[in-house]
Amino acid sequence: MTVRDVAARTGLSIATVSRVLNGRANVAPDTRERVLAAMGELGQKAPRRRGERATGVYLRCPYLLTDYFGLIVSAVTEALEPHGLQVILNAGVAAQRDHVLTALTGRRDVAGAILILPPEPGAELARLRDRGFPFVVLDPRTPPPRNLAAVSAAHFSGARQLTAHLIELGHRRIGIAGGPRDWLAGENRFAGYLAPLADAGVLPAPELIRFVAEPTVELGHRAAAELLDLPDRPTALVAFNDKMAIGALHAAAERGLRVPEDLSVAGFDDIELGQACRPRLTTVRQPLEEMGRMAVHLLLRMLGGHRVDALHVELATELVVRESTGPVPDVFHGSGTGTRHSGTRMH
Amino acid sequence: MTVRDVAARTGLSIATVSRVLNGRANVAPDTRERVLAAMGELGQKAPRRRGERATGVYLRCPYLLTDYFGLIVSAVTEALEPHGLQVILNAGVAAQRDHVLTALTGRRDVAGAILILPPEPGAELARLRDRGFPFVVLDPRTPPPRNLAAVSAAHFSGARQLTAHLIELGHRRIGIAGGPRDWLAGENRFAGYLAPLADAGVLPAPELIRFVAEPTVELGHRAAAELLDLPDRPTALVAFNDKMAIGALHAAAERGLRVPEDLSVAGFDDIELGQACRPRLTTVRQPLEEMGRMAVHLLLRMLGGHRVDALHVELATELVVRESTGPVPDVFHGSGTGTRHSGTRMH
Repeated sequence: MTVRDVAARTGLSIATVSRVLNGRANVAPDTRERVLAAMGELGQKAPRRRGERATGVYLRCPYLLTDYFGLIVSAVTEALEPHGLQVILNAGVAAQRDHVLTALTGRRDVAGAILILPPEPGAELARLRDRGFPFVVLDPRTPPPRNLAAVSAAHFSGARQLTAHLIELGHRRIGIAGGPRDWLAGENRFAGYLAPLADAGVLPAPELIRFVAEPTVELGHRAAAELLDLPDRPTALVAFNDKMAIGALHAAAERGLRVPEDLSVAGFDDIELGQACRPRLTTVRQPLEEMGRMAVHLLLRMLGGHRVDALHVELATELVVRESTGPVPDVFHGSGTGTRHSGTRMH
Repeated sequence: MTVRDVAARTGLSIATVSRVLNGRANVAPDTRERVLAAMGELGQKAPRRRGERATGVYLRCPYLLTDYFGLIVSAVTEALEPHGLQVILNAGVAAQRDHVLTALTGRRDVAGAILILPPEPGAELARLRDRGFPFVVLDPRTPPPRNLAAVSAAHFSGARQLTAHLIELGHRRIGIAGGPRDWLAGENRFAGYLAPLADAGVLPAPELIRFVAEPTVELGHRAAAELLDLPDRPTALVAFNDKMAIGALHAAAERGLRVPEDLSVAGFDDIELGQACRPRLTTVRQPLEEMGRMAVHLLLRMLGGHRVDALHVELATELVVRESTGPVPDVFHGSGTGTRHSGTRMH
């Protein structure tokens, strides 16, 4: 596809099409839309000059690159390198102000993109897709449209395995420190935590459920503190992620509760923090590096013009049992919904 | 500077100069050198076509982006964005195989570079500098040549503050779990740990000093275990960084030693891990984000053709006293080089 093709399809002049592609300001919005739509129909994202080859992959991860996001970014970068593709990085919390549509429109140096937990609404991603721009969403924040390539971890089944493990240990009164409600991962893990309880005939009391706006150590601490200060406190806590679970460990320690003797605590993700703390966290391992490699694999197939049928890829998680979970304390054994008690442990 | 200028200066044809700049294989090594030398003399890194503007900054961080490196990369990326510069990321352990000279030669899209803890020998960096390519080294691994822009933390004075704090608490028998000996940070922190001991008239016994090849939790654990198993064990341990200090906490716990009652432990860096563990680590805070911003500031000045006089910038660190350090145990008080004891604590 050349500028000429786009001009022919839209009926616009070559100069106008060029202005759009060069991101010039003096273009009417509907003209821009017409050009981008035509490009989408022509099945390409941007015409190139003869001999030009796009070698950039736009990697957007608008978060602080710590233990979690940093590992994904490292894996994606490493996986792209052997293919002669270079990462154009858009990262850090300030990057949440950027918009993919603006950032990726009319760029001839960018072949495709990988968007990690994109804060953009689904409609905006769908629009980018409609323009024919090749990209993969890694860990979608909202349910991805059917025709959009996405890679995620098996949040639901991972969370389900975790609660099943706690139920096997005799726990019935399980508190849930849930993640952001508007995150797909938050909803799916929450559903996974509930499923085995429902199977065991336990309807979790609403008082045992807390949600946070951001999954941090601090907010995990606060949510756990509220649950542990209930007159009839839970014997186990599951947290949206490891950071929140670490906050829960701190809340337990402040209250003189021993983990796992008095209280079981479990997280999700398996980041390094969970092995550095004591007791080591029982958690669900997300295959972060494999998720990065899979996203690159999907993108390469799209760039190569290959057909990609299974657009939504969910990678298996793994239950990792360490030291922070144990049998339900004797006093609760068999009590089902728990016995009201003073908060003093009886051993 | 244009291709024509370089051709004129070298006496080579325009076609040959172009081949070098386009990174073609069919160029004799000494021809390539001649072209690059001429470019260095002409004070520019690569000629551009008319109207072309390099907007890329090559950010090399050939390590896993975790809590430490990820924060620096985030800060650099955020600081570049408002200047319309985009990050071309080279990261992950596999990137250690790449070479800056090869990666950065003859690229018209790259305006400059920031190299984080570069594994390249100093001579290679000096050569890149001689070619007139603008770049800043962030956290140099070896002593940077005088005319090379470098940003680092005040390793020596930070480490000195830390040992001074332990000496004030009465500790004299201080074990050192040092970092890689061939890292500038390792050498400088080691010197900083020794200085206040020397001031206090204590010559540290060689048996109290260990070095590791890589500063990980695991190797920190191993080094600390060796120090704690000495017949006359230290009352305090300083580690090259927080990860190693966390390994030391684990080694202490395995031996039934309470921190800080029986043993003080301190780290360096102030990464998130150090606040998630219990007791919270006493450490030295490196201003990682500020280091990233400062490197960008220096690079922008170089790109703007401004004079940069103070090429080596050292940013102040800060002693952060938390829970892992405390007064020397009574039995050791005033004993100077320590009393031989059975390892059983007498309280």
